[in-house]
Amino acid sequence: MAELYLLPNVLHEGDWQNVLPARVIEIIGKTRYYIVENIRTTRRFLKQVDRNIDIDRLTFYELNKHTDVDAISGYLKPLEQGENMAVVSEAGCPGVADPGASVVEIAHRKGLKVVPVVGPSSILLALMASGMNGQNFAFNGYLPVRSPERSRAISALENKAVSGNQTQLFIETPYRNNSLIADLLKVCSPSTLLCIAANLTGENEFIATKTVAQWKKQVPDLHKQPAIFLLGK
Amino acid sequence: MAELYLLPNVLHEGDWQNVLPARVIEIIGKTRYYIVENIRTTRRFLKQVDRNIDIDRLTFYELNKHTDVDAISGYLKPLEQGENMAVVSEAGCPGVADPGASVVEIAHRKGLKVVPVVGPSSILLALMASGMNGQNFAFNGYLPVRSPERSRAISALENKAVSGNQTQLFIETPYRNNSLIADLLKVCSPSTLLCIAANLTGENEFIATKTVAQWKKQVPDLHKQPAIFLLGK
Repeated sequence: MAELYLLPNVLHEGDWQNVLPARVIEIIGKTRYYIVENIRTTRRFLKQVDRNIDIDRLTFYELNKHTDVDAISGYLKPLEQGENMAVVSEAGCPGVADPGASVVEIAHRKGLKVVPVVGPSSILLALMASGMNGQNFAFNGYLPVRSPERSRAISALENKAVSGNQTQLFIETPYRNNSLIADLLKVCSPSTLLCIAANLTGENEFIATKTVAQWKKQVPDLHKQPAIFLLGK
Repeated sequence: MAELYLLPNVLHEGDWQNVLPARVIEIIGKTRYYIVENIRTTRRFLKQVDRNIDIDRLTFYELNKHTDVDAISGYLKPLEQGENMAVVSEAGCPGVADPGASVVEIAHRKGLKVVPVVGPSSILLALMASGMNGQNFAFNGYLPVRSPERSRAISALENKAVSGNQTQLFIETPYRNNSLIADLLKVCSPSTLLCIAANLTGENEFIATKTVAQWKKQVPDLHKQPAIFLLGK
């Protein structure tokens, strides 16, 4: 039976063998149809993994916020006809905080075989490295952008993290990181633990878990750097 | 500066290169001190990755539910003295649903450098492969064992999954899987989506997302097979 591979992508430029298993070469070797967020960057990624790949033999379907929902179901035709396919994210794991989940949902409805491949996820790497509760955690995506709503959202997450003992993860558009950090330090209790993880798997990887009181003494500048935030106790 | 590597382990017997990046060889080559759940199985894992490793040169510290909390801080002495160390889980990623987080927390308090390594996590693989909402999800660990409390817990999770649109993940001791599945099919609404993922990355990998009504027509037998469950809408 043909398989729908969920193929993670690197998070940063650099050697893919640092973050992806060698099995990826074998999967790419037997897969001609790709469902991707961005065709240009996926071609570059595939070339990086297998220098000898014949890109012109491959077929790409674009799946991103501009994609017509009704078109997605048709993307799976090659799979239904016995051809392996792969979903590739722009960065990290398809289906986690990216549009890939919609095509996987349709594959299940059609009874097709879905095979997830191991790869880098900033959510999981940050959770591992935070030292916070990994038995109970939630990823919340983006918080509201405006400050009154954002402060309320931060308070609610802090309450779940501290009283509920459920580690809370969230992200922000990189150019708003510093403003989010300012709000976190303003809203949260001095004893609440905040982990900030930036540039995960990249050259300038930065990961630290401190109390809000400790962070206030030395506020990091993460302007335009991809980061993920965790609240815990 | 010496580094504390968080080194994932395989989930199943089989070629480690299917689930771990080649970088793992390099890390093992420069690390002599290991904090592990089980010394015997870690030795076997290290031998599998590097056949030529001299196990007798390595020092192991055991970190599991029997470990005295006061002893953990002392484990990090080699790291403080400039030696790389690695935390290795019994299966999957250290710090996620295993005891590793406690030593990472102490490392942060001491201002030591923590480096997470990519590897297999049944939580993340199942989320990717479920086709469910990956922008907002929670991992809840184990549910209560007894049936009245368990049914209430299932209802609460179903409500968060369907009304809150937050995918809910949880696990069960493998010999209780079938009883959990029976309760899920009894308690949840026919239209609620349930994903069952078993033996992830293993030979008999099984992943399917269906409505509760569809599952009732063909109830899977997952007795004693490692599985993870997801509720979504």
